[in-house]
Amino acid sequence: MKVLYSRDLGFRSEFDLLVNRSDNDMADVMPIVTEIINDVRNRGDVALKEQILKFDGWDGGDSLAISKDEMKEAFNNTNNKMKEALNLAKDRIKNYHKKQLEKTWLSFEENGSILGQKITPIDKAGLYIPGGKAAYPSSLLMNAIPAIVAGVKQIIVCTPATNGKVPELLLAAMYILDIKKAFKVGGAGAIAAMAYGTKSIPKVDVITGPGNIFVATAKKLVFGDVNIDMIAGPSEIGVIADDSANVHHIAIDLLSQAEHDELASSFLITHSKDFALKLKDEIYRILPNLKRYEIAKKSIENKGAIIITQNKDESIALMNELAVEHLEIATNDAFSYLPFIKNAGAIFLGHYTPEAIGDYLAGPNHTLPTGGSARFFSPLGVNNFIKKSSIISMNKNGLNELSKACMALADAEGLEAHKLSVEVRTN
Amino acid sequence: MKVLYSRDLGFRSEFDLLVNRSDNDMADVMPIVTEIINDVRNRGDVALKEQILKFDGWDGGDSLAISKDEMKEAFNNTNNKMKEALNLAKDRIKNYHKKQLEKTWLSFEENGSILGQKITPIDKAGLYIPGGKAAYPSSLLMNAIPAIVAGVKQIIVCTPATNGKVPELLLAAMYILDIKKAFKVGGAGAIAAMAYGTKSIPKVDVITGPGNIFVATAKKLVFGDVNIDMIAGPSEIGVIADDSANVHHIAIDLLSQAEHDELASSFLITHSKDFALKLKDEIYRILPNLKRYEIAKKSIENKGAIIITQNKDESIALMNELAVEHLEIATNDAFSYLPFIKNAGAIFLGHYTPEAIGDYLAGPNHTLPTGGSARFFSPLGVNNFIKKSSIISMNKNGLNELSKACMALADAEGLEAHKLSVEVRTN
Repeated sequence: MKVLYSRDLGFRSEFDLLVNRSDNDMADVMPIVTEIINDVRNRGDVALKEQILKFDGWDGGDSLAISKDEMKEAFNNTNNKMKEALNLAKDRIKNYHKKQLEKTWLSFEENGSILGQKITPIDKAGLYIPGGKAAYPSSLLMNAIPAIVAGVKQIIVCTPATNGKVPELLLAAMYILDIKKAFKVGGAGAIAAMAYGTKSIPKVDVITGPGNIFVATAKKLVFGDVNIDMIAGPSEIGVIADDSANVHHIAIDLLSQAEHDELASSFLITHSKDFALKLKDEIYRILPNLKRYEIAKKSIENKGAIIITQNKDESIALMNELAVEHLEIATNDAFSYLPFIKNAGAIFLGHYTPEAIGDYLAGPNHTLPTGGSARFFSPLGVNNFIKKSSIISMNKNGLNELSKACMALADAEGLEAHKLSVEVRTN
Repeated sequence: MKVLYSRDLGFRSEFDLLVNRSDNDMADVMPIVTEIINDVRNRGDVALKEQILKFDGWDGGDSLAISKDEMKEAFNNTNNKMKEALNLAKDRIKNYHKKQLEKTWLSFEENGSILGQKITPIDKAGLYIPGGKAAYPSSLLMNAIPAIVAGVKQIIVCTPATNGKVPELLLAAMYILDIKKAFKVGGAGAIAAMAYGTKSIPKVDVITGPGNIFVATAKKLVFGDVNIDMIAGPSEIGVIADDSANVHHIAIDLLSQAEHDELASSFLITHSKDFALKLKDEIYRILPNLKRYEIAKKSIENKGAIIITQNKDESIALMNELAVEHLEIATNDAFSYLPFIKNAGAIFLGHYTPEAIGDYLAGPNHTLPTGGSARFFSPLGVNNFIKKSSIISMNKNGLNELSKACMALADAEGLEAHKLSVEVRTN
């Protein structure tokens, strides 16, 4: 694991490599994904079933839809401990997201004019839940609950079914959330189907959810025809720690990100050289004991970094530049850092807030901006499932007060009928 | 101008053409725009200057920057009436957008856990202001003011300078808004420059502003590396009217959209056949007298439509399907429609609220979703210039209460270190 000293001469160029870690290079897959999307637009379910045969190893069967019975059966097969955990997560995530709900507002002027902003739920949302080796019920909870809280009427879920099977835990989570429409289809094809509709799969207004480079590229290509949440890459953690932090805990936290993905990034920034060097040793002590050793090792070696700074201010400044997805502040005075944290998807404060608690059931969303995009993207939330409309209502007096200025501006921009539309109502 | 009756047999297929009016087909320009972007990434200002020579008819001079002196001189040359109009617009737009500011919030649990959401202004915003024959100071106001209200520290403006000249009124508006960095460069090259940075032009975090298909395509291509506001096409208006509306006024309102652009759309939906037919006559009566007759005529003939429905409910349902950028409700009981309006960029209520007042100085933003994207996009606002971070802080008790469920979920997803990170803090 790389150790960098901020005072070293070569530091800036080494650090810039970390800042520019996002290598979301879609150019290579763009042609293939474009072809997949066009194929689904042109041939609908037929194209989808061919893709399913190719990528998921089954023929798509009679129907791509997941039945309510399948969900119920999976729920019944789930043990009580897991049911309780899923329900606790559901309740806590719902509770947090309810606090994000924005209200329609109006404001009034003395002349009787009314201005405002109307909040309306999106009609139809499509949630993409990746498949692969493991089940990710938490991804379903984190995508569906903000949509449910926003008041979305139709929620569609697409998830790949390797050999026709959807993991039982994911089906059980669908049952708990009362998902009415879910389909066994994944990849770029699923994104195209939700963006443009097929005979089986309804066209939606917004598509959210994580996915590999094919899914991410498809989301980018359909953006504009539908809305999307964000374009996300490999997961990442940054920790700012001082000597008050527990070396063993922080080592595990960094490894918990590294175990996700060989491309995941784990950064520690501290002004304590002593802590930094102990941490490095501790990581290498734990690493061989992990089940996901191979993945975690590659991630730590190739993507991880420990940065030793001169002081707290410098640690914060560098962490803001990295703009990480998950940021832990492992110090006794963690809240004192908060005013200075500009860029981070989620901020975990203090010694008892491991990042993993945010992945499952603290309440805030675990779909977060990666690769430095916390500079401009926000966590997935209720906001992704509503839209706003401006409200303007004037009476004759209100319009009169603005008419001269409005006509002057319309005139200056050469738009005669704009000017006339005010003039005829006020003279 | 097309007149459609909702009860006619062929209505649905005719109407679907209007619903699917967005022909944002970027496939044709995608290769050229990709090349322009790559050229700017590779060769920076040199590439930009070549593009300026090609598209704007000058060589880019010694510096692409617009000096404070140029802005000041333009402001001094502006007459008082226009200065007052611009200042009134600025004040009203600022006042409205201040109401959109979201606050950082925290919530507390009895066990001492803290959850919340931090609001932070985006660091650097790039505003694109189109050029061409007319000056659009209103576009600058509408893009810059939400950024200013959000607290963005660095605001960059790019605008094409035909033959090296930026319209005086736009320069004056820059002076009024105290824009510190502005550059004479337009098109896809300007978007690339703001997304990736050149020697002259700083890299930004979010790019907003209208533009032609090249600009829109460039925005889509850089999306993910920066955030963007939306992908917008030609302007449009929909009016729901009944017999209480003034035929002359509504005719002018529809024409005020048609005069923008041959591709602009104007729709009237009413259940009054009498009103509909009178309106059609009135449009053709006014049309020949307009300065922008040729443009308005093509727009009305090719893109306009009058739709006669059976009743008010049907009018609303069809208008929701059209999801127009600007929606006027020209009836005495306009507010009674509001609960049922689901999709519209801005809603103008009553007989004294012409759409044009929203273009300049009612206060709400005039950058609005077009082409049916009001189903999922919102008006430009302060929200486009901030980002959110989730806040999670737990003590030992708080973590203890969630630990079992969290470990069960981490276990189920096969993430051992996730589970460990909770376990080591609670046992």
